[in-house]
Amino acid sequence: MTSTTGVTAPQGFRAAGTTAGLKASGKPDLALVVNDGPRHDAAVVLTSNRVQAAPVKWTRQALSDGRCDAVVLNSGGANACTGAPGFVDTHATAEAVADALGIGAADVAVCSTGLIGERLPMDKLLAGVTAAAVALDGSGAQGGADAATAIMTTDTVSKQAVAHGPAGADGQPGWSVGGMAKGAGMLAPGLATMLVVLTTDAVAEPSVLDAALRAATRVTFDRVDSDGCMSTNDTVLLLASGASGVEPGEDELREAVTAVCADLARQLVADAEGASHDIAVEVVGAATEDDAVTVARAVTRSNLFKAAIFGNDPNWGRVLAAVGTTDAAFDPDALDVSFNGVQVCRAGGVGDSRDGVDLSPREVRILVDLHAGPASATVWTNDLTHDYVHENSAYSS
Amino acid sequence: MTSTTGVTAPQGFRAAGTTAGLKASGKPDLALVVNDGPRHDAAVVLTSNRVQAAPVKWTRQALSDGRCDAVVLNSGGANACTGAPGFVDTHATAEAVADALGIGAADVAVCSTGLIGERLPMDKLLAGVTAAAVALDGSGAQGGADAATAIMTTDTVSKQAVAHGPAGADGQPGWSVGGMAKGAGMLAPGLATMLVVLTTDAVAEPSVLDAALRAATRVTFDRVDSDGCMSTNDTVLLLASGASGVEPGEDELREAVTAVCADLARQLVADAEGASHDIAVEVVGAATEDDAVTVARAVTRSNLFKAAIFGNDPNWGRVLAAVGTTDAAFDPDALDVSFNGVQVCRAGGVGDSRDGVDLSPREVRILVDLHAGPASATVWTNDLTHDYVHENSAYSS
Repeated sequence: MTSTTGVTAPQGFRAAGTTAGLKASGKPDLALVVNDGPRHDAAVVLTSNRVQAAPVKWTRQALSDGRCDAVVLNSGGANACTGAPGFVDTHATAEAVADALGIGAADVAVCSTGLIGERLPMDKLLAGVTAAAVALDGSGAQGGADAATAIMTTDTVSKQAVAHGPAGADGQPGWSVGGMAKGAGMLAPGLATMLVVLTTDAVAEPSVLDAALRAATRVTFDRVDSDGCMSTNDTVLLLASGASGVEPGEDELREAVTAVCADLARQLVADAEGASHDIAVEVVGAATEDDAVTVARAVTRSNLFKAAIFGNDPNWGRVLAAVGTTDAAFDPDALDVSFNGVQVCRAGGVGDSRDGVDLSPREVRILVDLHAGPASATVWTNDLTHDYVHENSAYSS
Repeated sequence: MTSTTGVTAPQGFRAAGTTAGLKASGKPDLALVVNDGPRHDAAVVLTSNRVQAAPVKWTRQALSDGRCDAVVLNSGGANACTGAPGFVDTHATAEAVADALGIGAADVAVCSTGLIGERLPMDKLLAGVTAAAVALDGSGAQGGADAATAIMTTDTVSKQAVAHGPAGADGQPGWSVGGMAKGAGMLAPGLATMLVVLTTDAVAEPSVLDAALRAATRVTFDRVDSDGCMSTNDTVLLLASGASGVEPGEDELREAVTAVCADLARQLVADAEGASHDIAVEVVGAATEDDAVTVARAVTRSNLFKAAIFGNDPNWGRVLAAVGTTDAAFDPDALDVSFNGVQVCRAGGVGDSRDGVDLSPREVRILVDLHAGPASATVWTNDLTHDYVHENSAYSS
């Protein structure tokens, strides 16, 4: 039995989510994802922040041989900036998972999310690992959903996705990619605190998985920039069981992994802390893709622009001011900007009437044409709202 | 007669502020500052934004010969992204000032601030120039204050400052530097929309003024970063009349100019849009000054950090997460962070109790020790508040 979505959609995976008691709210806070094989190939992309949480350091080491048998994830505490004792806690967590499942601790990835600078209550966490391991058996589709729920922090909904490879000769999907994600704040390039677990029953070597994962994150999670902040704990894992017996082409695999990442990334934007608009900043006519990303990111990082969108104000001057801070190739007098299809700025000056722009829908599309070449890119962000300020000023209190 | 502060404090300057009717509010919106000599040396620092307003393009040209006889400044419209017609408007403004004062238009600097992307009502503006020129005579100390008021946008108070050179043999100050500034939002490195006029009665060649001005702005206005945004209109002018007859040493002049810039910069932070805290992020123990500035700026640009300060939350994890995004030299396990004198993070981990931190005063001091060298730098910012979001979402409506 497989579920229709999430980490247990592909064959060869079990999952569970339980309540270990790490969160004051008493909500689920511990998840397990287990790869039952027959293969255990894996790849990971980790935060590029130089201040890295203990679980990030552990998981980098654990994944260095391209093998991963299980992932344990907790919300309710990031275990970041906790020094050597924090690393010992992560190690103990991996050992507990290994003991419960009869595998090696070095094949267990660990992910944590929550407040920085506090030790985890290890008695509760280790008891939770035992409970989660028990809950695995017979968990079926529900296990994937439970795991996706247990990793939520300020997320208001859990996030799961699935993509299927081409059908086999029998008309049945030959293999699939599933995934779950959490991360409602701190989304940023170089990834976010954002934890993502992707699974596939395709047959693929670790190097192939790594290439597919890096290609996918580069154009999905790396192009979501909710508030410009980068976490100490970002982790995106891809586990392959080989249970389908199908070895897809590298392009096919990359496309399926990218589709799941794009789906999850869009869900993250839609659930960003306190946001009232999801904003796609699409830059076209760039000399290079790097230029397009640089310009789009400059716009998505402008607090003035983001506050204007919150106020349903098509303030294109703030877009131009942000574009002008970059070193991308463009002529300031050639810039065009559209808000939801209305070209309010033409050739660097006043264009069509801003009165024609309707910013009431949640999704807003900004189009910037640099008129400098053939490249393009889209970066997603959110507006800057009263609720964002409120949630992030009250987060740790 | 000289005033005790502002642009008319040094000898040889007159100023005026009038209401041309550019602002819907009917508040003063046009200012003139005139250098009556005997010398007319000058220097300017302009925005590094590549999208530059018409007055910025004009003023760069006008100041290229190191001479400036008068400055006209308007609030109520930035004249940015207005194309060739906008440049014609700026030119016409300079011509009107030149006609009224009997000087050359090429010796008139023009500064504008307000909404981007709208033409100025030139009939009102030119009539305002005539009125301001009339108001100059006998304006004395009040003229400087009126000019400082007329350049305000969302500023709640006008900003003026003065510094005196060493006393002469007669015990009287031999020369002085005065100044005025506006700019309550969009403060950022590379300057802000922020218009600043500095005056001095010292004798100094344009090259000396330029060196003093660049040295001063580098460690003052360039280290104020209210919201990470950079304007299309930033201008800092320094005009020297030579009326004191004293030629100070280059160090003396630089120190006095820096003192006035530092005073004005601090006033800008104190009046930033919607802010409830002024935050000094001081980085010490850096390998280089560039490293110190890079780290301090990363912290001042973290929306999560700024929102935490709004909530009186000494969330040092967000400081570390911001530090970790930089390429400065440091060991993550050696970082120390203090909030208002309490060392809440020691050696990259938990330090003294955050309960001991009092963030209720408006001024907050964050100290980050990188333990990587002898260099240091301080960057000022503000917290991220409900009022910031409100003011900037409603700005153009």
